[in-house]
Amino acid sequence: MSERVLVKQLQAREDGPVSVSGWVETVRDQKKVQFVILRDETGAVQLVNPATRPDPEATDQDAAALALTALISALSTGTFLTVTGELKHDERVKLGGVEIKLASLDIAAAALPETPIAADSGLDKRMDWRFLDLRQRRNNLIFRVQTTLEHAMRTYWIERDYIEVHSPKLMASASESNAELFSLDYFGEQTAYLAQSPQFFKQMAQSAGFGKIFEIGDVYRADPSFTSRHATEFTSIDAEISWIESHEDVATMQEELLQFAIQAVKDKHGAEIEELFGLEIAVPRIPFPRIPLAEAREIVKARGYDIPRTDGDLDPEGERQISAHVLETYGHEFVFITDYHPEIRAFYHMRDPETGLTKSYDLLYKGVEITTGAQREHRVDVLEVQAREKGLDPAHLAFYFDFFRYGAPPHGGFGMGLARLLMLLLGESSIREVTFLFRGPTRLAP
Amino acid sequence: MSERVLVKQLQAREDGPVSVSGWVETVRDQKKVQFVILRDETGAVQLVNPATRPDPEATDQDAAALALTALISALSTGTFLTVTGELKHDERVKLGGVEIKLASLDIAAAALPETPIAADSGLDKRMDWRFLDLRQRRNNLIFRVQTTLEHAMRTYWIERDYIEVHSPKLMASASESNAELFSLDYFGEQTAYLAQSPQFFKQMAQSAGFGKIFEIGDVYRADPSFTSRHATEFTSIDAEISWIESHEDVATMQEELLQFAIQAVKDKHGAEIEELFGLEIAVPRIPFPRIPLAEAREIVKARGYDIPRTDGDLDPEGERQISAHVLETYGHEFVFITDYHPEIRAFYHMRDPETGLTKSYDLLYKGVEITTGAQREHRVDVLEVQAREKGLDPAHLAFYFDFFRYGAPPHGGFGMGLARLLMLLLGESSIREVTFLFRGPTRLAP
Repeated sequence: MSERVLVKQLQAREDGPVSVSGWVETVRDQKKVQFVILRDETGAVQLVNPATRPDPEATDQDAAALALTALISALSTGTFLTVTGELKHDERVKLGGVEIKLASLDIAAAALPETPIAADSGLDKRMDWRFLDLRQRRNNLIFRVQTTLEHAMRTYWIERDYIEVHSPKLMASASESNAELFSLDYFGEQTAYLAQSPQFFKQMAQSAGFGKIFEIGDVYRADPSFTSRHATEFTSIDAEISWIESHEDVATMQEELLQFAIQAVKDKHGAEIEELFGLEIAVPRIPFPRIPLAEAREIVKARGYDIPRTDGDLDPEGERQISAHVLETYGHEFVFITDYHPEIRAFYHMRDPETGLTKSYDLLYKGVEITTGAQREHRVDVLEVQAREKGLDPAHLAFYFDFFRYGAPPHGGFGMGLARLLMLLLGESSIREVTFLFRGPTRLAP
Repeated sequence: MSERVLVKQLQAREDGPVSVSGWVETVRDQKKVQFVILRDETGAVQLVNPATRPDPEATDQDAAALALTALISALSTGTFLTVTGELKHDERVKLGGVEIKLASLDIAAAALPETPIAADSGLDKRMDWRFLDLRQRRNNLIFRVQTTLEHAMRTYWIERDYIEVHSPKLMASASESNAELFSLDYFGEQTAYLAQSPQFFKQMAQSAGFGKIFEIGDVYRADPSFTSRHATEFTSIDAEISWIESHEDVATMQEELLQFAIQAVKDKHGAEIEELFGLEIAVPRIPFPRIPLAEAREIVKARGYDIPRTDGDLDPEGERQISAHVLETYGHEFVFITDYHPEIRAFYHMRDPETGLTKSYDLLYKGVEITTGAQREHRVDVLEVQAREKGLDPAHLAFYFDFFRYGAPPHGGFGMGLARLLMLLLGESSIREVTFLFRGPTRLAP
């Protein structure tokens, strides 16, 4: 068997014998000549075969040629196969300027003739058949972009001596509130909960003297949310660092990280993203704009939108409005909203003794919140008071408070959903489009 | 506030004012002079302070000096603090040849005076207080090694155009057998199961035309296993590739991967591992030795060990014996055992039509199995027969069989536990020592 050549390598290769493997995208079975478009993970190429049709009047037809023609006529879309043939450069061939004249065709696994989805199938139907949906070039690109994005972030951190951790997702206690938790029987002895975030454990790493850590791992939310921005299970990107002076140190790291990672995506996939998603990746300049929440609300109001929420926070339309303002005023797609009131923040956010506001931020990207970041309260006495204020049961949090009883550095960090970032980066309308296999309240398969 | 300097930067720095942050490892509170060993994530440094003790007969004692002395006398181990002082190089100081003469000391969070664990505490006790246990230099190194190991593996793959995926851990069906599965209520509508491995979904990526993929993510095993090699939740390293000719292609990739990653660990941490673990990292040469299972059993028998298992597989002692043989004969710490009978392999392992044996391998490292790899059966009719042979319910596997009905390439891959690899690499006796927060049947906290 000759060695497999990737489709993307064909253009640079000299004419001659070649073997490629992939799946059938289309078949044009004309009377005199047959064309197959074969796609692999790197591109698509045209295969051509002069048809040899059974002729009752001919006496010396080539049996192999007849068989090959019949095999191609019977090919169904999606069939995976290996072909050998003669590579020929021909500038008239639109698809890459090359074609392969078929010599042999070896089917690895034939597809059923009826494909259950089409290019214009609805999202839910496509998710039912996600493995077919993912064969589209555009969807394949999403996950190559994700790979580059993640690897760039990890590289940024590792070059700066961060430690990568994998915190357990099975927990004995609820991490923040019981409302959104999946629970399960743990060896008939205990109830275990699925982690909503690695929050407590990434803070534990600070008490453990790890200094700077990151984690990219799955988390679980049992709230029945059906928006285009929420998932029941998603990959969370988390970082936590010691010896900060305020949340500003976290924000500075995060904006550098995002600039670095988006630059890497643009460098590697910019042209292809422009072709398939019709958008140019904008690498954000740093620093990102920062706007205190109260000021952001004033700006949104001045733009004619009265936020109906009474708790002082922004709502989704308010987030879109302030982002529009930032884009118009500063030409920037990101904005940090700062100075949130403790009432609308988690109990462990540190408070500024002068203003009484939390040392925290939300990061908005193209009008959508992608991150909450904060300095954490590391003084256990203050932390306990703040937990009680929120009505949390100190008994459930005892293990967490312990992390701060034996010394702890000032620290802070952020959490960010991978799919949400990717959705916005590629201008997609739903995280379902950018998740390998989405999980939602009514979606647990395949 | 002056900028924080890391301890590892002190040696190369000129004498003069400096600020460091970390935690108190020890205090020697002598009458005339006080010494504090302060550790941060990069090393330890000696702080020194000439004691100023209250003298009832003195009339003009320096109040600040008195306060600083009292503060140091009251310091408890583990307290996190920032100090400023004068850096001074002094070759008589054993710890790095530098010390800092204290000027000020700012406590971030004081530790309770009684530390619940000591250096000689038992493993279970240390796990109860894992965040304190992790402050040990040796434990810190484990996770820096893990970070380097993982990053090297990802880099190896990404340089070869692999796609990184995050498959869902919530599944509607059991992946292989129901015996070892955690189940949970999914929105009151369905039962969800926690994935034991990403097996089915990494195969799905092959049908999706992804070509080559990897995943590093958590998986769950509900079997009550208490060995030093098993965990209820662990990080699994998985890869799966298309268009292979046999499991040999998988083995070749895995040995290159391991050589590359272990070389990276040796380059970055070799000296420190030698100092703290007393072992020299051996970078394995490739190819690793390969021994068919039947031959391995003969060799073990000839060494005087009669494997009591009747199913034809090796047992743990058999694995140690064959590894000892390989080390003695070939000077190699790794060995692939090949040609397993279908009865002791998963239903989806492809079988060799000539021998009837599976196209699969186990990889042993220092006497312990760390991987099962295989070519998978991609022909759905054969796959269904093999599942039925194992007594599996085709209805539960319908979603999986679908992955192969619409075309699929020949493919294969492997799975490998991160902690088990790390345990063996560092010569540790239990995966509990090398897991950030271990989860076992009786261990769900902290």
